[in-house]
Amino acid sequence: MSDRATASARTELPFSREEYALRLDKVRRRMAAAGIEVLLTTVPENIVYLTGYSSLGYFTYQVLVLSLHHEPILLTRAINVEKAQVDSCLTCIEGYRDTEDADEATHRVLERYGLLGKRIANQDDAWFFSVARYKTLLRRLGVNDLADGSGLIEHVRRIKSRREIDYIRQAGRYCEASLRAAIAAVVPGATENDVAAAAYQAMYQAGSEFLGHEAQYVAGPAAGLGFECAKRRPVRADDVVYMEAGGTHQRYNCMLSRTVIVGRPDPKWIAMAEASRDALDAAKAAMHAGATSHEVDRAARTVMGKAGLGRYFSHRTGYSIGIGLPPDWGEGRIMSINENDPTVLESGMCFHLIPDLKLVHQGGVVFSESVLVTETGHEALTEFPSEIFFK
Amino acid sequence: MSDRATASARTELPFSREEYALRLDKVRRRMAAAGIEVLLTTVPENIVYLTGYSSLGYFTYQVLVLSLHHEPILLTRAINVEKAQVDSCLTCIEGYRDTEDADEATHRVLERYGLLGKRIANQDDAWFFSVARYKTLLRRLGVNDLADGSGLIEHVRRIKSRREIDYIRQAGRYCEASLRAAIAAVVPGATENDVAAAAYQAMYQAGSEFLGHEAQYVAGPAAGLGFECAKRRPVRADDVVYMEAGGTHQRYNCMLSRTVIVGRPDPKWIAMAEASRDALDAAKAAMHAGATSHEVDRAARTVMGKAGLGRYFSHRTGYSIGIGLPPDWGEGRIMSINENDPTVLESGMCFHLIPDLKLVHQGGVVFSESVLVTETGHEALTEFPSEIFFK
Repeated sequence: MSDRATASARTELPFSREEYALRLDKVRRRMAAAGIEVLLTTVPENIVYLTGYSSLGYFTYQVLVLSLHHEPILLTRAINVEKAQVDSCLTCIEGYRDTEDADEATHRVLERYGLLGKRIANQDDAWFFSVARYKTLLRRLGVNDLADGSGLIEHVRRIKSRREIDYIRQAGRYCEASLRAAIAAVVPGATENDVAAAAYQAMYQAGSEFLGHEAQYVAGPAAGLGFECAKRRPVRADDVVYMEAGGTHQRYNCMLSRTVIVGRPDPKWIAMAEASRDALDAAKAAMHAGATSHEVDRAARTVMGKAGLGRYFSHRTGYSIGIGLPPDWGEGRIMSINENDPTVLESGMCFHLIPDLKLVHQGGVVFSESVLVTETGHEALTEFPSEIFFK
Repeated sequence: MSDRATASARTELPFSREEYALRLDKVRRRMAAAGIEVLLTTVPENIVYLTGYSSLGYFTYQVLVLSLHHEPILLTRAINVEKAQVDSCLTCIEGYRDTEDADEATHRVLERYGLLGKRIANQDDAWFFSVARYKTLLRRLGVNDLADGSGLIEHVRRIKSRREIDYIRQAGRYCEASLRAAIAAVVPGATENDVAAAAYQAMYQAGSEFLGHEAQYVAGPAAGLGFECAKRRPVRADDVVYMEAGGTHQRYNCMLSRTVIVGRPDPKWIAMAEASRDALDAAKAAMHAGATSHEVDRAARTVMGKAGLGRYFSHRTGYSIGIGLPPDWGEGRIMSINENDPTVLESGMCFHLIPDLKLVHQGGVVFSESVLVTETGHEALTEFPSEIFFK
C-alpha cells in the first residue's frame, strides 16, 4: 500500500501569509512592550488566529510557542502534525507521542529552539491548560512561577480585518437561513427539537461549519431560566419561543435572534419583545468609533428602563465576536458592551448585541443582531425582518 | 407585571434522589480515604453527575463544594441560581454577582459554611478553572498550595447504573436515526454539508439534545487527517466517506460510525473498512468483566496486524462514555481501551470502540459502536447493520 499523497500538500489558508505575518508582528510588539520574550498559549482561538491551524482535537494538550525572534512553534500530539503541516502557515511543528510526558516535550522544544532562560510567560487564563499541567510544567522548568501573558493576543484580535469581516458576514448568511427555517418549523404539534432540526438542517445546508456554542430554540417557561436548549418540550398554544441562531465560516461565528409568538399569550410578552427590539435598535444607533462600551449599553438600558423593564435586564448588552470553538462562540472574555465599561469602540470591531429579557419560570423574548463598528456608525452583519413572528 | 411562577417549581430530575445520594456517598468515601475534607470541582460533567444541574453557562466560573459532613454547595453566577434551584437536587445554592470578585465569593462561601481551615483539595485537572483563577484563589485563601483532588469523582462515574445505561441506549437511538439519514444523503452532487444537514436534522427530530462534540461527516482525502468535520467539500465519485454519528440524552452521549463508499475507489479502501469492522468485532468479543483494557485493545490490534495495517492503527481502540458537554463527548480522560493499560473492566462500564484507519492525505474508514460491559461479555448500545454502504 502506498502512502503517496493524492491531495495537494497544503490547503488554501483562510488568510494571506501577509495577514498572518501582520498579526504575529502586532503580538510581538505587545510582548516586547510587556517585557516578555517567549509566550506560551494553549488557547485554541489564538492558535487559529495566528497560524490557521484548527483541529477538533484542540482540547488535548497543544501549545503555540511565540518568541520575539524565532518563528512560532507548535507542539501538538504526533497524530496532529500532518494536519498542522497542511492547514497552517507554520514552519516549525513538533509532535509528542501519547506515551510521552507532554511537559517533558514542552521543555524539550524550548531547549531545542534556545528559548530556555528567556523571559517566558504563560497564558494563565487559558481553559485547556489545567492547574495540574501548570504545576508539572513549573517543576520541569525548575521555576517557581511564570509571568502571565493573558490577553496579549486577544487584544490584537479585537479589530477585524476586511477578510475577517467577510467571513463573519458569510456566517451571518448561515444564521439567516437557519432562523428562517426555525420560524417556519413552529407549527401545531411541533416540539423544540423539530424547530432545532429545521434550524440545523438549514444551517449546514447553507454551508456552515459546526458552531462554537449551541444555538437556542426554547419554548415557553423553560426560556425564562436562560442557558437552555432544545430538550424535547412541545411548543404549546400561547407559548413564546426564544430563538438564537448561529452560523460559522472559517471558524468565525455570527449570531441572530428573534421571538416567535404562538396564539395569544399574555400581552406583556409583545410589549417585552418590542422593548428588546427597540433596545437593540437604540444600541445600534449609539454605535460608532469613539463611543464607549458603556454608552452603547446605556442606550439599550435606557429603553428597557422607560418600558419599566429595567429590573429584568440585568446582563450586558453584547459581546465581541470572531473566532470561536466550543464551548464558546463569543469573544466576551475579550470585550463586552456593558455598563460602566469605559472601553472606546474602534472601527473594525464586531459585536453580537443581545438585549433579551427573561422572566424566571415564565419565558423569554429576544431580538439580537451582529454588527460591525464603523467610523460613522455601524454596518449590519445579518439581514432579517425586524419583527415579532406570530403563529 | 407579576413574577408569579407559571411552571412547577422543580422539573423532574433525570435520576432519583436516592441515586444522587448514593453517588455522593461514594465520592465522600473516596475523599475520606484520601484525607480530603473539602473538594472543589468546576468540572461540568461532575456537577451534572452529582447534582443534576446542567446549564450552557458552565464555562463561566461555578464551583461545587463537596465536604464530608455538609450538603454539597454550588456557587454560580447569580443569573444561574434559579435554574440550579429548578434543575438540581441541591439544597445549598449561592450566587455571585458579575461585578463581584469570584474568588472572594468562593472564600465567602467556605467561610459561611465553616469549611475554612479544613483540608481543602481542588480538582486541578479541570478545564474551566484556569491557572489565573487558581493563583488568585490561593492568595485569597492565604495558602501556598492546595491538594489535588483530580479523579476522585471520575472514578465513581466509570460504572453506570441501570438508568444511566438506559439513557445511553436512548442516545444510541438518536445515533442510529442520524447515521441512517447521513448515509441516505450521499447522492450525486451532495456535499459534506448536505450529509451533515441530514444527520443533524434526523438526530434532533429523533429527540437528541446537543452533542458534547461535533459529529464527523468527511469525504475523501480530508478524512485522512483526522479531527476534521464537514466543511463544504463535495462528495466526489470514488470517494470514501467517513461518518461518526452522535446522540445525547439527559447529557449522556453515545456514538456510532460507518463507512460509505461511492463508486469504485481503490480496492484497498474496502479491505481497510473490512479490517476496521473485524477489529471492532474482535474487541467486542474480547470484552467482559474481568478482562483488561489491554486485552480488549490487543484483540482489535491483532486483527489490524494480520491485515497488514498495524502501522496505520496508532491510537487507542476506545474510550469510556457517559456524561459529556462540549468540547468532549467521551470520558477518555477517565478510562480508555488501550495498549498496556492494565485496568480491569467491570460490569456496567460503557465504551465507544472506534478502531478506525486513516491514511494521511488519502482518506479514512471507520466502523465504531458503543457497548456495555457485562459479567459474561457485552451488550450493544446501538443497533446498525455491520456493513460497508456502497453508493
